Amino acid sequence: MWKADRQEADFPGCGCDYNSADWVILGAPFDSTTSYRPGARFASRAIRGEFYGLELYSPYQRRSLEQAAAFDGGDLELPFGDTARALDQIESAVSGIFSDGKHPVLLGGEHLVTLGALRAAVKRHPDLRIIQFDAHADLREEYLGVSLSHACVIRRAWELVGDGKIHQFGIRSGDGEEFAWGEGRVSTQLFGCEGLSETMDSLCGAPVYLTVDLDVLDPAVFPGTGTPEPGGLAFRELLDAVLAVFRGNIIGFDLCELSPPYDPSGISTMTACKLLREMLLAASHNG
Amino acid sequence: MWKADRQEADFPGCGCDYNSADWVILGAPFDSTTSYRPGARFASRAIRGEFYGLELYSPYQRRSLEQAAAFDGGDLELPFGDTARALDQIESAVSGIFSDGKHPVLLGGEHLVTLGALRAAVKRHPDLRIIQFDAHADLREEYLGVSLSHACVIRRAWELVGDGKIHQFGIRSGDGEEFAWGEGRVSTQLFGCEGLSETMDSLCGAPVYLTVDLDVLDPAVFPGTGTPEPGGLAFRELLDAVLAVFRGNIIGFDLCELSPPYDPSGISTMTACKLLREMLLAASHNG
Amino acid sequence: MWKADRQEADFPGCGCDYNSADWVILGAPFDSTTSYRPGARFASRAIRGEFYGLELYSPYQRRSLEQAAAFDGGDLELPFGDTARALDQIESAVSGIFSDGKHPVLLGGEHLVTLGALRAAVKRHPDLRIIQFDAHADLREEYLGVSLSHACVIRRAWELVGDGKIHQFGIRSGDGEEFAWGEGRVSTQLFGCEGLSETMDSLCGAPVYLTVDLDVLDPAVFPGTGTPEPGGLAFRELLDAVLAVFRGNIIGFDLCELSPPYDPSGISTMTACKLLREMLLAASHNG
Amino acid sequence: MWKADRQEADFPGCGCDYNSADWVILGAPFDSTTSYRPGARFASRAIRGEFYGLELYSPYQRRSLEQAAAFDGGDLELPFGDTARALDQIESAVSGIFSDGKHPVLLGGEHLVTLGALRAAVKRHPDLRIIQFDAHADLREEYLGVSLSHACVIRRAWELVGDGKIHQFGIRSGDGEEFAWGEGRVSTQLFGCEGLSETMDSLCGAPVYLTVDLDVLDPAVFPGTGTPEPGGLAFRELLDAVLAVFRGNIIGFDLCELSPPYDPSGISTMTACKLLREMLLAASHNG
Amino acid sequence: MWKADRQEADFPGCGCDYNSADWVILGAPFDSTTSYRPGARFASRAIRGEFYGLELYSPYQRRSLEQAAAFDGGDLELPFGDTARALDQIESAVSGIFSDGKHPVLLGGEHLVTLGALRAAVKRHPDLRIIQFDAHADLREEYLGVSLSHACVIRRAWELVGDGKIHQFGIRSGDGEEFAWGEGRVSTQLFGCEGLSETMDSLCGAPVYLTVDLDVLDPAVFPGTGTPEPGGLAFRELLDAVLAVFRGNIIGFDLCELSPPYDPSGISTMTACKLLREMLLAASHNG
Amino acid sequence: MWKADRQEADFPGCGCDYNSADWVILGAPFDSTTSYRPGARFASRAIRGEFYGLELYSPYQRRSLEQAAAFDGGDLELPFGDTARALDQIESAVSGIFSDGKHPVLLGGEHLVTLGALRAAVKRHPDLRIIQFDAHADLREEYLGVSLSHACVIRRAWELVGDGKIHQFGIRSGDGEEFAWGEGRVSTQLFGCEGLSETMDSLCGAPVYLTVDLDVLDPAVFPGTGTPEPGGLAFRELLDAVLAVFRGNIIGFDLCELSPPYDPSGISTMTACKLLREMLLAASHNG
Repeated sequence: MWKADRQEADFPGCGCDYNSADWVILGAPFDSTTSYRPGARFASRAIRGEFYGLELYSPYQRRSLEQAAAFDGGDLELPFGDTARALDQIESAVSGIFSDGKHPVLLGGEHLVTLGALRAAVKRHPDLRIIQFDAHADLREEYLGVSLSHACVIRRAWELVGDGKIHQFGIRSGDGEEFAWGEGRVSTQLFGCEGLSETMDSLCGAPVYLTVDLDVLDPAVFPGTGTPEPGGLAFRELLDAVLAVFRGNIIGFDLCELSPPYDPSGISTMTACKLLREMLLAASHNG
Repeated sequence: MWKADRQEADFPGCGCDYNSADWVILGAPFDSTTSYRPGARFASRAIRGEFYGLELYSPYQRRSLEQAAAFDGGDLELPFGDTARALDQIESAVSGIFSDGKHPVLLGGEHLVTLGALRAAVKRHPDLRIIQFDAHADLREEYLGVSLSHACVIRRAWELVGDGKIHQFGIRSGDGEEFAWGEGRVSTQLFGCEGLSETMDSLCGAPVYLTVDLDVLDPAVFPGTGTPEPGGLAFRELLDAVLAVFRGNIIGFDLCELSPPYDPSGISTMTACKLLREMLLAASHNG
Repeated sequence: MWKADRQEADFPGCGCDYNSADWVILGAPFDSTTSYRPGARFASRAIRGEFYGLELYSPYQRRSLEQAAAFDGGDLELPFGDTARALDQIESAVSGIFSDGKHPVLLGGEHLVTLGALRAAVKRHPDLRIIQFDAHADLREEYLGVSLSHACVIRRAWELVGDGKIHQFGIRSGDGEEFAWGEGRVSTQLFGCEGLSETMDSLCGAPVYLTVDLDVLDPAVFPGTGTPEPGGLAFRELLDAVLAVFRGNIIGFDLCELSPPYDPSGISTMTACKLLREMLLAASHNG
Repeated sequence: MWKADRQEADFPGCGCDYNSADWVILGAPFDSTTSYRPGARFASRAIRGEFYGLELYSPYQRRSLEQAAAFDGGDLELPFGDTARALDQIESAVSGIFSDGKHPVLLGGEHLVTLGALRAAVKRHPDLRIIQFDAHADLREEYLGVSLSHACVIRRAWELVGDGKIHQFGIRSGDGEEFAWGEGRVSTQLFGCEGLSETMDSLCGAPVYLTVDLDVLDPAVFPGTGTPEPGGLAFRELLDAVLAVFRGNIIGFDLCELSPPYDPSGISTMTACKLLREMLLAASHNG
Repeated sequence: MWKADRQEADFPGCGCDYNSADWVILGAPFDSTTSYRPGARFASRAIRGEFYGLELYSPYQRRSLEQAAAFDGGDLELPFGDTARALDQIESAVSGIFSDGKHPVLLGGEHLVTLGALRAAVKRHPDLRIIQFDAHADLREEYLGVSLSHACVIRRAWELVGDGKIHQFGIRSGDGEEFAWGEGRVSTQLFGCEGLSETMDSLCGAPVYLTVDLDVLDPAVFPGTGTPEPGGLAFRELLDAVLAVFRGNIIGFDLCELSPPYDPSGISTMTACKLLREMLLAASHNG
Repeated sequence: MWKADRQEADFPGCGCDYNSADWVILGAPFDSTTSYRPGARFASRAIRGEFYGLELYSPYQRRSLEQAAAFDGGDLELPFGDTARALDQIESAVSGIFSDGKHPVLLGGEHLVTLGALRAAVKRHPDLRIIQFDAHADLREEYLGVSLSHACVIRRAWELVGDGKIHQFGIRSGDGEEFAWGEGRVSTQLFGCEGLSETMDSLCGAPVYLTVDLDVLDPAVFPGTGTPEPGGLAFRELLDAVLAVFRGNIIGFDLCELSPPYDPSGISTMTACKLLREMLLAASHNG
């Protein structure tokens, strides 16, 4: 019987079955609370669609994705306009991944989707630490009267984990109240990644959830995002920082805020793909 | 003292003060429930920004916008991600306009914003009729479990006005259940505007709210919209139909679903501007 | 065990298994011989990616795609730069579909991919007729010294089926020699679809392969194509013509020359999706 | 000695030398007075660059451009920001063409460049008539205090030729004063081309300059222009009208207001190319 | 009476009235002499439209724009195509600002608009110094025969202030004659900002006009400009340099040559917004 | 007789005739084997079209292109879809240039076009060395069964020159087999240009062909390329490296893989133009 010699729709090298996988990729196409430019809903689809433009082999880590124990679980179908339900669905899916003894790789969507994953993670790992790369502090109590907003996601995360558990890097935007509130509650490294190595040393093997809001990158490198903020990291700076984080005990991670409609040249999507490759490789090695 | 010879930020010809105006323009930048391509939040800003590319004078109606009794009330600041509150804010603002004896001109935003205006309108005019130009029937009970969705807005409208009060034109998309449900409840003209004249005659001066989902236009004419649907109206077809509606007793109207990010050439925004000019002129003449 | 409530990657309504399907969708992402603007290689991926923006139900045919007996066989992996081998792979895949008693639905790629399907079709159906909607005659003997070119595909098709078997509609571009050569060999309707009904009547149930070069549409409707040619068909004209063809004995069909990179608004992709829906529905009903 | 088999940079079929040519193509890349969206300066370059995407043969006129007696004189180098000097340079160049017994084919640039050509034409042909296809009346006395503006070009032309010599078609924009002023001075056909045949008959062989502001086309067909005006002509309507004009005694013509930066799909440039091909063919036949 | 809870159209934090403001923002939408890619006319509108995507608070200066004593005077309405008059209007408006004891913040427009401001500034401050960040020397005597051109603006400025008063940084483009002419007349730092600190020290409190041609930034950071020149400054380099300049006695400043049409991702506009925020903050503190 | 004061279509400063030129520019518009995003076929045309946006004078080398002994030979007309013939045509043209005692400057097209030039170069200079700047190793034996592919071009080059003659810089992508195969055969500097100076010293005046795949640049700087690879060189890094190479005995060079359709802001084309200017200046000085 005929069989098409068809291209793989899913991520190459992630074709191992669910049972044998350690890491499960899950798309969360949601951007209803995006305040400036929506479009992050299209990110997971763009990443899957363009991933084939990249080699599986990494000259940075000298390993190939074919050796990574990752499974692509596809995209959740989330209800636009009902934020609470969307977060419940994300939490439920990520909890299922943890229950099966696996680790989530969440592809946003806007940064708020991280909250769903964190709710599941903190139930599994009550002593959870959070490492955040981001241009924005995201520490608001509410935004235009909405508490479940991408501008408040780390404030909501703090409600889950408490003081001293959240470490922000690359922050270069926020209002004055946010920064004042954050003092003593979260550690915030402005502009760059200084102190990351010391932070990692201080964690002593505690479980870490890594959240990467891709707008931490400079808009020159990553124009396709909802709230571009000039003055960010170069690609290599972020890559090196992320790989340093993977020396810790990472129990889940995400990539958020790629907004393909604002990226006609496609370089932002390709940057997200490359970071995902490197993170999957680092995760498979350390996990 | 110095005074800049500055350009008007608001619509030209709409500079009469609120008190003397019959029609009040109000932007509703909201698109959180958009299911396919968001961006309608930017529509009212784009329309204001590009309106100066158009003449004030209409050779179709041989009148100039300078004679229109319209006031530009600016944009509401709506909370992305909290649909119920956004609709409440719209309803409240439109109710205020009606209370002052004026008529609303709502600039969406996604089509759901119409619901806020209709709630206010039906309180003022319990025997309200609705004329809808749209590619989509929007008659779903819910969409992905959400009842306050742009795909359900006319179903919600029917809950307000009941059977036989809604007249749809240009419809060319929907699922089978929608069309089956609609039979006997709303009148639906597929593909074009046949029967519009008879419909207008049958209204006998009843108060009419006119809602224009701009995707009723062909995507060639109007590419910049959230859910383009091939096979729609030409510009002149819609213009003539809309002007025919204004022979009735129009108590408010809206223009929805312009999504400027999907319109790099700007022709969709200019089309919305021109329709708005013609509608304001027709409203001022008839109102 | 956890199961993501994931979105379907393939075409909705085409989820029946291969065995029970009558029609098999096959992508042929190839555009190496495109002479003007390449990019048709991305068409099948774009169509799959955007299909969810469309309803499954057709108000034109009053049927839903869920009832269509179609299977999505994915994309072939074709070698850019080796035209002969790419055509061999297409021919081989389409022959396999015919051998299993099914019918091919080929998604180009450039128009040359049709040749691979025709080679398989003419082996199965030696008395094959070809109906072509196209802006270009494609009757050249060679183009810049290359005979396997998208500008020569119907000349190559004529070599397979002979005189009087090819019927072209909507043609509005070619060189003088092409038109002269074509006289008496193929029937060419310039500019529109006049005579289509008579042509269909004359076929008397003979097996027909339908090839649609989407540039037959007006560039206003379909800007995203390799060689846009002003002055083409409206969407409804092509839809009506295509549905008329399905009254015949269609044994396979294709859609070619969508080039998504030249379509920033996405309306061309959506037009291809809608035509595909209508053709699958018509095919399922007639086949 | 080595000789590259290079592509022709100039228009194909226009390779005859200056001496044997009847028609001389001249680019006027100027857009300093454009009031809305500049970019027409790039038009002649875009037309030359994309012309090879078109066949030389016309199935409309059944002739090939290889038989046209046209010479491509390249682009003038005009000073941005000095309107009077730019017009002088255009007038001087066009006068030279007339002096050599040839006819100008001017490629704008904004519509004001037509004034330079008209000054030369009216010196040569004091009884000159002007046929104008345009969305805008261009009859203002001045625009923002500037009399040499693209919004005033036909008013300036009237100063050259006087009452009853200018015939406008397709006009659908202007202010009320313009239209009032124009009555009895120019003939203005609103919206379409009705009466064109009668106008041509009435000219009795008088010398005619044909100016085509491409925004007469519908923005769906021709989005890439400085001031898109919804509700215009279809391609075939304009083509047929233009060919009808060439039954008269055309002594020069132009194509203006293509603005390639607003045309990411390239269909506007291709439309201008195709009209130019048809006009050169019609000119060669009639001239 | 009804009052819309409307968004502010003007710059947030700049809502203090004219009388209490120290700095007055003024848009100068003019680009008629742009030699390469026009579009800077849209800059002030884009900056106003997108400014809300930015926080009011600066983590660089740890102050918020709400504390800045700035008033937004809107845009001048300048005549395209009449350069001399446009400059007169700018000079007149800026003179009015100085007369009221306030300082101008000019938003271009092409770089030539700076000349209007400088004419007013030098009348008020005869010993004026000019600090210029720019990719281009702009020291030509004329460009294509035009002396009022954006390519000549600093040459015209030199005519106002004389030798040794102009300090250029970041210059990486010019013709050989320009550089030769400039020696001894203006100080030109090629490629970067070396020596800026020494320059500021040397000024001893003299009044300084700061002009920033945004193309001094690398095109990666700032693609949306009329004449992109590879090899420029990073965002942080320019920000630090500009803040260093504000340690001096700044009596006015401008931001020029943002051309939004060449910036589909919007990062250039956001970069201009962020620089403007920082400059307004620094100005309010120092002024 | 009339003579238009027309702009030069060819590169300014390259107007010396073929006989007196040392360097001959030749466009090779071919991209049939591009595996990811085609469009490099448009590069030479875009470079010619935009070159006028650049000054002729270089402040880096303090020389002007008017002094360069270069001739622009135009573009070859290559057959899309027939790779072998296209390479033959390139080889033949480049051989002709060498035979006339001149040096080729090849403008791709995809990187495979380099192979045609190398075949000619190695016949003329059997001891040829190759310096390659590239993101990709291009050392595959074949790609999807095709050996004449842009992904294999340096493997094919190695077959011409043998071990130890190829020096790669900036490489950051490839599969594991490529890198393993390359060890001992070619020298590969990962990520940057370390060791370039030592490499140049070691060449001792041997003839060198320099090939620049422009994707060696960071995608922020150069988004318009077929396979963007994050983490590349800054403009100034590449410029300095390239100028260092020109201290050697360069007998020919090329610039490949500019893909203008993926560069809506035009900064990639301008970057290619500037590198070409600098390379022509360096070549003229050293040659």
